Amino acid sequence: MKILIIGSDGYIGWPLGFHLEAAGHDVYRMDNLIKRQHEKLLGVRPLLPVNLVDREVPYSQASATNCDYLLKMFDVWEIDVVVHLGEMPSAPLSQIDFSWAKWTQENNILGTLALIWAAIGADKTPHIVKLGTMGEYGTPNIPIEEGWLNVCHKGYNDRVLFPKKPGSFYHASKVADSTNLEFACRAYGLRVTDLNQGVVWGTSTPQCPFDSPRRTSFHYDEVFGTVINRFTAQAAAGVPMTVYGSGLQTRGFIHLVDSLRCIQIACENPPAEGEFRVFNQLTELLSVGQIAEVIHSATGALYEKIEDPRVEDQRHLYKVAYEGLQLLGLDRPQLFGEGHAQNIVAKLVQLADLKSHHAALAAPPKVTWRKGK
Amino acid sequence: MKILIIGSDGYIGWPLGFHLEAAGHDVYRMDNLIKRQHEKLLGVRPLLPVNLVDREVPYSQASATNCDYLLKMFDVWEIDVVVHLGEMPSAPLSQIDFSWAKWTQENNILGTLALIWAAIGADKTPHIVKLGTMGEYGTPNIPIEEGWLNVCHKGYNDRVLFPKKPGSFYHASKVADSTNLEFACRAYGLRVTDLNQGVVWGTSTPQCPFDSPRRTSFHYDEVFGTVINRFTAQAAAGVPMTVYGSGLQTRGFIHLVDSLRCIQIACENPPAEGEFRVFNQLTELLSVGQIAEVIHSATGALYEKIEDPRVEDQRHLYKVAYEGLQLLGLDRPQLFGEGHAQNIVAKLVQLADLKSHHAALAAPPKVTWRKGK
Repeated sequence: MKILIIGSDGYIGWPLGFHLEAAGHDVYRMDNLIKRQHEKLLGVRPLLPVNLVDREVPYSQASATNCDYLLKMFDVWEIDVVVHLGEMPSAPLSQIDFSWAKWTQENNILGTLALIWAAIGADKTPHIVKLGTMGEYGTPNIPIEEGWLNVCHKGYNDRVLFPKKPGSFYHASKVADSTNLEFACRAYGLRVTDLNQGVVWGTSTPQCPFDSPRRTSFHYDEVFGTVINRFTAQAAAGVPMTVYGSGLQTRGFIHLVDSLRCIQIACENPPAEGEFRVFNQLTELLSVGQIAEVIHSATGALYEKIEDPRVEDQRHLYKVAYEGLQLLGLDRPQLFGEGHAQNIVAKLVQLADLKSHHAALAAPPKVTWRKGK
Repeated sequence: MKILIIGSDGYIGWPLGFHLEAAGHDVYRMDNLIKRQHEKLLGVRPLLPVNLVDREVPYSQASATNCDYLLKMFDVWEIDVVVHLGEMPSAPLSQIDFSWAKWTQENNILGTLALIWAAIGADKTPHIVKLGTMGEYGTPNIPIEEGWLNVCHKGYNDRVLFPKKPGSFYHASKVADSTNLEFACRAYGLRVTDLNQGVVWGTSTPQCPFDSPRRTSFHYDEVFGTVINRFTAQAAAGVPMTVYGSGLQTRGFIHLVDSLRCIQIACENPPAEGEFRVFNQLTELLSVGQIAEVIHSATGALYEKIEDPRVEDQRHLYKVAYEGLQLLGLDRPQLFGEGHAQNIVAKLVQLADLKSHHAALAAPPKVTWRKGK
């Protein structure tokens, strides 16, 4: 298949290209490299940067919000599937101030809107595979289904979009994307797969191993770093892992390699015309405290509980359906455990410039959700 | 109360200012007058324009997307309530092409986002009264409640946001607004009233009667005209009323005066801190075919069924709860009937330049929801 990756410079987008090529697909890459600018603006330095340009992998430097450009790519390259990873991925970033909240929603919502209109206008309508997030659902007190909910209300029945309860303006931008995409399926017959992904972790994939120059980026900071990656980096640096609040907050998780496999499965098994298909892309549920415990057991690293800078439920139900991708072939996922924890920390410890990151790894979070910050 | 109206130049915003002043409130007005530009761009001419500037009513010419400006107004004027009517109001406009869809979502979503952040930053947090639309719900096969739904699922219970099914990118922008506002109530303790309004009709209010220079605007065109106003203008001009599709599509309706009363009630009865309160703002349910029949009976005007340019259900359930505003005091609403139909048509017939609108009133709709237009 001819697959266009929007956001090919990212933590997932970079190894995804090589993964899909290894599976026999023709891959086209696109990225506006804006995350690098944001890192500079925020004073954030990843432990491992991606470096697409230097590696001379061909790509188009363009924004997902450029509808005309997308349309040209669809038509000239006869794209079968477009994988949209080109969104601002950080909840804390979207909570800093109006300017960052606006940038997040502008880039994400208008980018997906541009993609929808490019797909509507294309000679051959591509299947849209869109990365959403489990954070769109929040932590409701009912079991979370895969995108849709069968409701019986006052004697009437309907299948409705699963109600959303986002925990940040970033998560709200992803909810808006899903709203637009579902409407576009109904009105224009588009084929869309919305992948509500859990928290991704890991440093290596078969095509992009950790010890090769092709390895993917790795962020540990409070803005772009996700919890397992942040904790393992703190453990490697010998600073306490910072557990937000009670540590009882539970989320879905998935290893980087399994994330790539899920996206491949979605690409190779398109939905019907007009179908808005949603998968919950995760392989296990873990609490923040459990993760810290696993890393502690594996490496002896310590953790401390700090005030939760986010507004989120500390105790909550979290029953999640995630059978869809398994039914399409996702088997034997890599689950997080002491072996993985030990392995990642051992790799990070060897990084020559780890020491220069100590202060940043030990710093408390600066972004808070609360008014009057 | 000190009330700021964003969108004070519109069909509702204009008479709302005088209505609230008559009720004893201090009213501040703001509008960027962009709708006038859009009328010119689209070649649309309203039957009656608003003319805020010439009438020397003080107002601030600014966009709702200007967060700093809003914040200054909140602090300097010590605003108690902000009524946000400053959104692009047309479903067909948002379906023309990417550029209009983008403009709609950019203006609406980022405008409400700016308002949220201005409220977060204000010395005194204003109550936000936001105009939504019944079109956010679409036509689900379950009864429509006022914003929230009590769900029992697999033995668990929760009160969740009512699932949305918007019928255009405009309606989707309003869904995104509601998502952002509900999150802001949870995270920042804002007080928000989301008014999901039905289709508004009527030409006069006590403060802005039809035969005074203070009368409000009146659009009949396919982009800005709503169905009752469009049909009565067609009847006045002697061209057939154009019923889209089967005419069985049913919607909620409300007279302009009752819309103003509802907004006043919302302003004077604020929700609790952190509460996202939703009212369905309508007073009756009517089908498009019923409306044409009433006008036909009252005036003898003819109607014809034409192909529906929209993608919408022709036969559907439409059971809607709208008790909230009645419980707070909305009584004796003006319901649409032959008397009103006769009265409005009789007024419009007297307009000197009605003849110059004949061609536009007789023209079939140009905007379609369908691909390949």
